[in-house]
Amino acid sequence: MTGIKTTGEKKLMLFSGRAHPELAEEVAHQLGVELVPTKAFDFANGEIYVRFEESARGCDAFVIQSHTAPINKWIMEQLIMIDALKRASAKRITVIVPFYGYARQDKKHRGREPISARLMADLFKTAGADRLLAVDLHTSQIQGFFDGPVDHLIALPVLADYVGTKVDRTKLTIVSPDAGRVRVADNWCDRLGAPLAIVHKRRDPDVANQVTVHEVVGDVRGRVCVLVDDMIDTGGTICAAADALFANGAEDVIVAATHGVLSGPAADRLKNSKVSEFIFTNTLPTPGELELDKITVLSMAPMIASAIREVFEDGSVTSLFDGVAH
Amino acid sequence: MTGIKTTGEKKLMLFSGRAHPELAEEVAHQLGVELVPTKAFDFANGEIYVRFEESARGCDAFVIQSHTAPINKWIMEQLIMIDALKRASAKRITVIVPFYGYARQDKKHRGREPISARLMADLFKTAGADRLLAVDLHTSQIQGFFDGPVDHLIALPVLADYVGTKVDRTKLTIVSPDAGRVRVADNWCDRLGAPLAIVHKRRDPDVANQVTVHEVVGDVRGRVCVLVDDMIDTGGTICAAADALFANGAEDVIVAATHGVLSGPAADRLKNSKVSEFIFTNTLPTPGELELDKITVLSMAPMIASAIREVFEDGSVTSLFDGVAH
Amino acid sequence: MTGIKTTGEKKLMLFSGRAHPELAEEVAHQLGVELVPTKAFDFANGEIYVRFEESARGCDAFVIQSHTAPINKWIMEQLIMIDALKRASAKRITVIVPFYGYARQDKKHRGREPISARLMADLFKTAGADRLLAVDLHTSQIQGFFDGPVDHLIALPVLADYVGTKVDRTKLTIVSPDAGRVRVADNWCDRLGAPLAIVHKRRDPDVANQVTVHEVVGDVRGRVCVLVDDMIDTGGTICAAADALFANGAEDVIVAATHGVLSGPAADRLKNSKVSEFIFTNTLPTPGELELDKITVLSMAPMIASAIREVFEDGSVTSLFDGVAH
Amino acid sequence: MTGIKTTGEKKLMLFSGRAHPELAEEVAHQLGVELVPTKAFDFANGEIYVRFEESARGCDAFVIQSHTAPINKWIMEQLIMIDALKRASAKRITVIVPFYGYARQDKKHRGREPISARLMADLFKTAGADRLLAVDLHTSQIQGFFDGPVDHLIALPVLADYVGTKVDRTKLTIVSPDAGRVRVADNWCDRLGAPLAIVHKRRDPDVANQVTVHEVVGDVRGRVCVLVDDMIDTGGTICAAADALFANGAEDVIVAATHGVLSGPAADRLKNSKVSEFIFTNTLPTPGELELDKITVLSMAPMIASAIREVFEDGSVTSLFDGVAH
Amino acid sequence: MTGIKTTGEKKLMLFSGRAHPELAEEVAHQLGVELVPTKAFDFANGEIYVRFEESARGCDAFVIQSHTAPINKWIMEQLIMIDALKRASAKRITVIVPFYGYARQDKKHRGREPISARLMADLFKTAGADRLLAVDLHTSQIQGFFDGPVDHLIALPVLADYVGTKVDRTKLTIVSPDAGRVRVADNWCDRLGAPLAIVHKRRDPDVANQVTVHEVVGDVRGRVCVLVDDMIDTGGTICAAADALFANGAEDVIVAATHGVLSGPAADRLKNSKVSEFIFTNTLPTPGELELDKITVLSMAPMIASAIREVFEDGSVTSLFDGVAH
Amino acid sequence: MTGIKTTGEKKLMLFSGRAHPELAEEVAHQLGVELVPTKAFDFANGEIYVRFEESARGCDAFVIQSHTAPINKWIMEQLIMIDALKRASAKRITVIVPFYGYARQDKKHRGREPISARLMADLFKTAGADRLLAVDLHTSQIQGFFDGPVDHLIALPVLADYVGTKVDRTKLTIVSPDAGRVRVADNWCDRLGAPLAIVHKRRDPDVANQVTVHEVVGDVRGRVCVLVDDMIDTGGTICAAADALFANGAEDVIVAATHGVLSGPAADRLKNSKVSEFIFTNTLPTPGELELDKITVLSMAPMIASAIREVFEDGSVTSLFDGVAH
Repeated sequence: MTGIKTTGEKKLMLFSGRAHPELAEEVAHQLGVELVPTKAFDFANGEIYVRFEESARGCDAFVIQSHTAPINKWIMEQLIMIDALKRASAKRITVIVPFYGYARQDKKHRGREPISARLMADLFKTAGADRLLAVDLHTSQIQGFFDGPVDHLIALPVLADYVGTKVDRTKLTIVSPDAGRVRVADNWCDRLGAPLAIVHKRRDPDVANQVTVHEVVGDVRGRVCVLVDDMIDTGGTICAAADALFANGAEDVIVAATHGVLSGPAADRLKNSKVSEFIFTNTLPTPGELELDKITVLSMAPMIASAIREVFEDGSVTSLFDGVAH
Repeated sequence: MTGIKTTGEKKLMLFSGRAHPELAEEVAHQLGVELVPTKAFDFANGEIYVRFEESARGCDAFVIQSHTAPINKWIMEQLIMIDALKRASAKRITVIVPFYGYARQDKKHRGREPISARLMADLFKTAGADRLLAVDLHTSQIQGFFDGPVDHLIALPVLADYVGTKVDRTKLTIVSPDAGRVRVADNWCDRLGAPLAIVHKRRDPDVANQVTVHEVVGDVRGRVCVLVDDMIDTGGTICAAADALFANGAEDVIVAATHGVLSGPAADRLKNSKVSEFIFTNTLPTPGELELDKITVLSMAPMIASAIREVFEDGSVTSLFDGVAH
Repeated sequence: MTGIKTTGEKKLMLFSGRAHPELAEEVAHQLGVELVPTKAFDFANGEIYVRFEESARGCDAFVIQSHTAPINKWIMEQLIMIDALKRASAKRITVIVPFYGYARQDKKHRGREPISARLMADLFKTAGADRLLAVDLHTSQIQGFFDGPVDHLIALPVLADYVGTKVDRTKLTIVSPDAGRVRVADNWCDRLGAPLAIVHKRRDPDVANQVTVHEVVGDVRGRVCVLVDDMIDTGGTICAAADALFANGAEDVIVAATHGVLSGPAADRLKNSKVSEFIFTNTLPTPGELELDKITVLSMAPMIASAIREVFEDGSVTSLFDGVAH
Repeated sequence: MTGIKTTGEKKLMLFSGRAHPELAEEVAHQLGVELVPTKAFDFANGEIYVRFEESARGCDAFVIQSHTAPINKWIMEQLIMIDALKRASAKRITVIVPFYGYARQDKKHRGREPISARLMADLFKTAGADRLLAVDLHTSQIQGFFDGPVDHLIALPVLADYVGTKVDRTKLTIVSPDAGRVRVADNWCDRLGAPLAIVHKRRDPDVANQVTVHEVVGDVRGRVCVLVDDMIDTGGTICAAADALFANGAEDVIVAATHGVLSGPAADRLKNSKVSEFIFTNTLPTPGELELDKITVLSMAPMIASAIREVFEDGSVTSLFDGVAH
Repeated sequence: MTGIKTTGEKKLMLFSGRAHPELAEEVAHQLGVELVPTKAFDFANGEIYVRFEESARGCDAFVIQSHTAPINKWIMEQLIMIDALKRASAKRITVIVPFYGYARQDKKHRGREPISARLMADLFKTAGADRLLAVDLHTSQIQGFFDGPVDHLIALPVLADYVGTKVDRTKLTIVSPDAGRVRVADNWCDRLGAPLAIVHKRRDPDVANQVTVHEVVGDVRGRVCVLVDDMIDTGGTICAAADALFANGAEDVIVAATHGVLSGPAADRLKNSKVSEFIFTNTLPTPGELELDKITVLSMAPMIASAIREVFEDGSVTSLFDGVAH
Repeated sequence: MTGIKTTGEKKLMLFSGRAHPELAEEVAHQLGVELVPTKAFDFANGEIYVRFEESARGCDAFVIQSHTAPINKWIMEQLIMIDALKRASAKRITVIVPFYGYARQDKKHRGREPISARLMADLFKTAGADRLLAVDLHTSQIQGFFDGPVDHLIALPVLADYVGTKVDRTKLTIVSPDAGRVRVADNWCDRLGAPLAIVHKRRDPDVANQVTVHEVVGDVRGRVCVLVDDMIDTGGTICAAADALFANGAEDVIVAATHGVLSGPAADRLKNSKVSEFIFTNTLPTPGELELDKITVLSMAPMIASAIREVFEDGSVTSLFDGVAH
C-alpha cells in the first residue's frame, strides 16, 4: 500500500489565559467541556511562561483572554499562548477577545500617532491566529483590521432585552453620551422603538480656555433616559452626561454598556452618581469594590459558547443575530 | 577601487490615470511639474494597456486616480499603473485617491458580506503601493486598513471656511443627515462655533412595513442649516433630510460635502431640491448636467499639491491641518 | 472531558458571479448541485455589492467567473466574492476562470509595461484564493504566476475531436496564425496526425512604414486548413491568416479556438470571412449577433464539472488529460 | 441541493529524495507503507527533474531527505519535491531532515557572514513546507528558525541506552570535546548518572602563532570516557580530544554521535584512532570504507516512523521523549 | 539638536560567486571597479562558507553568478551570498543571472511536476533579492515569476549583428529548431530581414513506437540557414535540425544561441556536426575541449556592465534595446 | 519639467521609551543629539498612548527600550512606538534592545511550549522594524530569529578589560556557572589567557527526590575565580556556584555579567553572598537597593552610540569588535 487512509476527525479545545478565569470557566461549562489544563506563571523578572498539559496536535483551538488590567501583560500572554499552539501543531486557532484592548486607538486622531488597534490585529496574526471572535468592537471597522474571518458578537440583545423588561417603554428615551456613539444609540432606538437624544459637548473656537458645555440635543424632560455606550472606562463622560440629563429634567437615568472597564476614578464616580442603575456584561471582571446593588452584570458566556459551537460545527454565527445590524 | 560612490538624488514624478485628468493637471500645475507622459488605452475586449513614456527608475512616484464611474475600471487602471511602476524600479510609490472607492463597505453590516474597503487597501499593497494619500475617508478607520503610511487630508477647512464667510454665523446650525455622521457635524460645530442638530430615521420595530419617519433632533426653527456629509451619492438621504429641516421651520438649508459622487437620480434630485446651495470639492468630476448656479465646486488641488511636496521633501503633512481633528 | 470530538465533513459549494451565468448553471447541473443563492448588484456609483444567502462556513468553495466585458468589473466582482468567502470562513477557495483576463500581458513586451497577468494572480491570492482552475491559459507559464496549485484544463480534446470527425483527415493541415502560437498548432498535429504550416508576418527592418506581408510557411495548396489559436479577439489576425491561406490555394479554412472573445470588429469580420466554420467553446458568452450557422460553440461545462469533482474528492485532474501535453 | 457533503478523509503519503534511500525504505517499512513511486533524475546540465507517479491531491505528505554529499544538490531536490507537492495540492507537507544541512552556520560568528541555517528554514517554508521534523539539530534554537511547527527528535535514548548496556557504568565519565557542546554531555550525565569532563582548547592571547593546547578539565584517569557530540565531520576535533584523554590516563575512549558526516580525512582518522568504538545513527549514509568492526550504526528509523504516525494521527510526539530535555 | 543630518550617498558594489569568475572580472573591468574581495570555500561535507572582506553596509549590491555545473551548488552559493548581504545591511540587492538555472521547467508539462523556474525566483526573493537582472530568459514570462523589477537583457543585437556582417544576407534564412522557439526566430527575421523556416518534429499518434521525423517547414534549398535558439544543452535537437536542413538542400548551416550550456554529449556532437560555425555568448563558461575554430564566443560583459550602470544611476535599461521586442 | 529633483538627505533621530531613560539619555549625549520629544502615558485602563512631537518623515529612526520590569508593558510600548514611526513615514526603523526580553525562551525545552524569543522578533518585524541592535543576546542564534540585519554588540571587552586591570591575572580562573554557558567562559579565557573551570549540577537519575550537587570541574583551589554569565536574574544559580567555589578552596570570587536583571530575591542574595564584587553593565536599570559598594556598573552607552553612528553612516559595526568572536 502506498499510503495510509483514515477518517478525518476534528476536536474542539478551549484554552484560557489568566486574565478573567470566571468568564472562561462559564463558557466552558456552557459548552460542556473543561478548559485545557495549562501551566502559566511569571518568572521573577515578569516574563510569562506557558505550557499546555495535553497534546493540542490537530485541534480546533479557541483561546480566550479578556484584555483587563494589567492589559499589556494579558495581551502578551495571549500572544504567547497562540505561538505555543501554532508550534504544537494546532490545526486552527481562534482568538477570543471579549474585550479587545486598544480598540479606541483605531485611527490616527493626530499625526504621528500609532493605530494600535490595527497593530493588535497584526500581532495576533503574526503569532499564529487564524480567526478572531470579539464582542462589541469599539468600531465595527476593526473587523477589517484583521486579515481573516472575524466573528463579531453583539451584546445589544442581552442588554436591551433586560432594559426593555424593566422600564416603562412609553417613557423611554435612548441617549448617546457624545457625537461619536450615536449609531449605537440608534440601534437601541430601533430595537426598543424609543426616541433618540444626544448629549453634545459644545466648544467655542473663538474663546480660549473655554468651558465645554454639555448640551442636550433632543427632548428628555420627564423621560426615563437610557445612556448607552460600548464601554465605560473612567466614567467621566457618562456621569457628566447623566448630570446634564437630570439638569434638563430627566425623570431617571440608567446606563447600559457592554464593557465595564471601570478604571481609575470610575468606582467613586459610579458610587456618587445619581444614575439609578448601571448595567454591564461580564466581558471584563468587575472590580470587587463595585459589587453594588445598583450595578447589574449580565453574562455573555451563553452567547460566546453558542458562537464557538457554530464555528466548530461549521454552522452560522450570523443566525445568532438575525435582524440585528452592526 | 572596489565600488563606485555618488551622491544620492531623489526625483518626484506625478502620474495620472484617465479617470479625472482635470484634477491631476491642476495638482501638477500647483506643483510646477508636468504629468509624466503615459500611453493608456483599452484593448477591444476592455483590457487596459498602460506604458510610461519616460524612465521611472528610482523615482518617488505619485499616482493619482479618482474612483469615479466606471469605478472598477479606474481602480484596475490604477493597480496596473502601480504594477508597471514597481517593475520599472520606482523607488517609492504613493497612491493618491482623492475619492477612495468602496469606502462605504468598511465593515460587515451583515454576515457573509465582504469588507471591500479593506480589500482595496490590500490590492493596492499587493500591486506595489508603499503609501496612500486620501481625502476625507468615509471613516477614519480606513487609515488602518492599509499596511503602511496614510496621509489623510481633510476638506473641512476648505468647505467650512467658504461657508463661514457666506452665512450669518449667529443663525447657523450644523446638521448631521443621519446618526452615523454626527462626528463630522461635530467637527463643523467646533470650527464654526455653531449648535448641532441631527436628522434621525425613526423605525418602529413592532410595526411591519412601517414608514420611516425623519425626526429632527435639536432646534432648527428659523435657523440657516448646513447639512454636512462626506459624500453625496444618489442624494436621497440628504434631500429627505433637507425636506425635514424645512418642514421643521428651517429658514434655509445649505449642503456641504467633500465628495460629489452624484450618481443615478442625484442630478434630478439636486435640481428639484429646495436647498439653496450645494457645495462640493473636485475630488470627483462633476457631471456636466450639474454645472448649475446653485452648485459650487471648491478645489482640493492646492492642498493635495502641498501634501505631495511635504511627502517628497520629508516635511510634515500634519502641520497642514494643525488643530483639526479627524 | 477536555474537548469535543466529531468526524470531519467537507462540503462542496459552487458560487457564480454575474458575468456568464449560463456556463455556471451548466457546470452546476453537471455536478448535480445548485449555485449558492447570492445577492449581487451595483450601487448607483458602480460599486458592487455581494452577499451569500447561505452559510459558507467551512465549505470547499468554487467561485466561477468568466472575464468577459466589462472585464474589469467582473474581475473585481470575483475578487469581492473571494473576500466575502474568506471572511465567512470558507475552508478553501478555488477560483475558476474559464477565460483568464489580461493573460496576454504575461511579460513586458517593452520597458515600463506592467505584467498584468501576474498582477491578476497576485490580486486573487491577496483576496483569499487558495487555488486556481483555468482553461487554456494564453501561455502555460501563467500557471507559475499563481502562488499555489493551478488546475489547467485543456480544450484541445473537445475541439480537435470535433474537427477530427468532420473533415477528411488525409487533407488536413494544421496552421498557426503567427509565430508565437506554433506550439499550440504542434499539439493539434500530434493529436490528429496532420502536417503543420505557419502564417508568418514578414517585416523589412530597412523600410519605414512598410506593409507587413503574411507569408505562408509550409504547403497548403489543396488542403483543408485548420487555423488554431487559444483565442479570437477582434478577428484581425485570424481573418488575415485565412485570406493568406486561400490566396495560397487552400481548399477550405476552418478556425478553431478555445476562447471566443469576439470584441470590437470581430462580428463583422467573422460574418464577412470566407472561413467555412468557426469553432469556439463556451468559456465566454457568445455575442447574440454571432449566433450564426457557421459558428459552432462546444461546451466546456462537463470538463470543468469533472475537474471540480476531482478537486473536491482528492482525485486526479491530471488523469482527465492523459497523454495530452501542455 | 446547494452543495455536496462527504465525510473527510486523510491520507498519509511518504516521499523520498535520492540522497539516502536505505533510511527512507526502512522508515516506510516501519510504517507499513511503500514510498510513493517517484521519477527523479538529473538533466545533462545537472538540473533535477522530479515527478510523482501517483496523485498527491489532498494527502498528508512527508518528504524525507538526508542532507549528505553532494549536499546542495540534495537540498535543492527536496525543495523541488516540496514545490511539486504544493502545486499538486497536497494538503499538508512535512519536511523530514534526519540531518539538517548548514546547521552549524546558525549565527554570524563574524560580521558579513550568512546565517545559512535560518536561510534553509526560510527556503523550505517558501517552497511550501508546513512543518519540519528533524533529528538532533546542531543547536535547539534552530527550531525557532522555522516559521511553523518543528518536531525535534532526540537520538540520546538510542545512543545512551546502547552505551549504558555495554560499559561498566561505575567507570564511566562523559566528556565534551569542546566548550560549546557541554550541554549535550550534561544530558548524557543525567541519563547515565556519570561525572562530566571537558576537553578545552586553550589559547594564549598574548602569544602570536601559539600552539593550542587541549586541556582536560575534570578527572579522567582510569576512566572509560565517552566522548559525545551531535556530529562527527572530519573527525579532527574528536580524535584530538581522544588523544588528550588517553594522554591524561583514560583507560578507554568511546565516541558517540548522532550524525556521522564523516567527510574528507574522517575515514583515515577514525581508522588510525585509538578510540575503541565509534557509535553513530543512520541519519546519514555511512561511507563504504567505514564499514569497520569498531564502527556501530544504530537505526533511527523506528523513532522517525513513530513520530510520523503521531503527527498523522494527531497524537503526541512529546510523549515519545518523556523526561528527556533538549 | 534633535537629530543628525547628512547628505545621502550611494555606493555600487559588485560581488561574484565562484561559478564563472572570468565573466564577473570582465564586467567589473568594464565598470571600472574591482570585485569585492570575498572569502568563499566548501567545508569538507560540501557546505559552502561565504564572507565578504569589506563592509557592505548601505551599498547597492550586484551579485553575479552563472548557473553552470554543478548547478545546484552555484545557485545555493548565490542564495547564501544574498543572505549574507541582507544581514550585512546592504541597501538593495540585485541578483545577476547571466544564465537562469531551471528556466526550462517554467510550467507543468504534466501533472505533479514542479515549476522550478518559479521556485528559483521565490528562493532568490526569500533570501533577500530586491531585483533580478538576466540575459535571454528561456521564456519571457519568467520575468513575471519574480516579485519585483526584472531587467531582461537581450543578446540578439550582439549575435545577429555578428551574423549579419559575416554572411550574404540575400541567401540568409532563419530557422527555428522546433515549434516552441519560432518567436525567437521571428525576432531574428525582423532584425535581418530574412525569411523564416521551421524544423518540425512530426509524430503519428496512431502508430506505436513510431520514429519521429524532422520535417522542414519552409524553403531552405540553397540557403544559408541560421538555426537560432536561446540555449544549446546536449546539442541533440540542434544537430538533428541541422542534418534535416542539409538533407533538404541547405547550402550551409550556422548555429547561434545565447547560452552554450553544452553538457553531456554536446562536445562530441558539435565536433562531428557539419554545421560550419557555432556562435554563443559568454553567459556560461565554455568547456575547454570546445575551444575550437568553429566555435565563436561573443562577450555579454559590456552589455551587463552598461545595464548595471543604468540601474545604479537610475538611468534607463530599456534604452539599451530600443526597438528590440522580447 | 516632468519631475522635481533634489539631493537626497538622511537624518538620524533617536527615540526612547519610558523603561530606562538614563541609558537613552546617555546614548543621546554620546551621539551629540537630543532624544526626540515624545508624549507617552498610560490611559486609566493601562493602554499606552504615544505620540512624537516632531515630524519623523523620512528619518533614520533608532528606538531604544530596555526590557525591564514591567517587561510586557515596555515591550508593548516599543511595538507601539514602532507602529507610530512606520505610519509617520520613517524611512528606516532600527530597534535597540540593550536587554532582549524573553531571550531565555529561545527553544522548546519541552513539547507545547512557545519559542517566545522568536515570537518577539516576529512582533518587532510586524510592527515595522527593519533592523535590530542588541547587546549580548542570551544565545547568538537569536540573531537568526529576526528576518533582517541584526547588529550584535558584545560587552565582553568592557567587562573583561575592567576585570583584567583589577586582579592578579596569574591567579585568575574563569568559571562557568553551569554547563550551558561554557562558551561564554571560553571567550573570557581567550581574552584574559586564563584557565577554565565549570560548576556542574550533578543529578543521579536512579535516585528519586535526589539532592542536586554542585560539582566543580577543574581546579580552583587558591585561585581568584571570575564567574561569568550573560545575565543574573534571581541570583540563585550564581550564588550557589560561588558557594561551591569557596567550598572547593577558591581564594576569592568575582561575578561579571552583562545584564543585571536582579529580580525577586536577587537583592538579598547578592547582599548576603561572600562574592567580593558583582560587575554589570547598564543595559538594565539597577534597583536602588542594590547601589552598594560591591556592585559595579559599567556603561554600554559609548558602544551603543558608536554602533548607531556606524549604522547611520554606513560604516562598519564589525570593526568595533575586531577579533572578538560571538
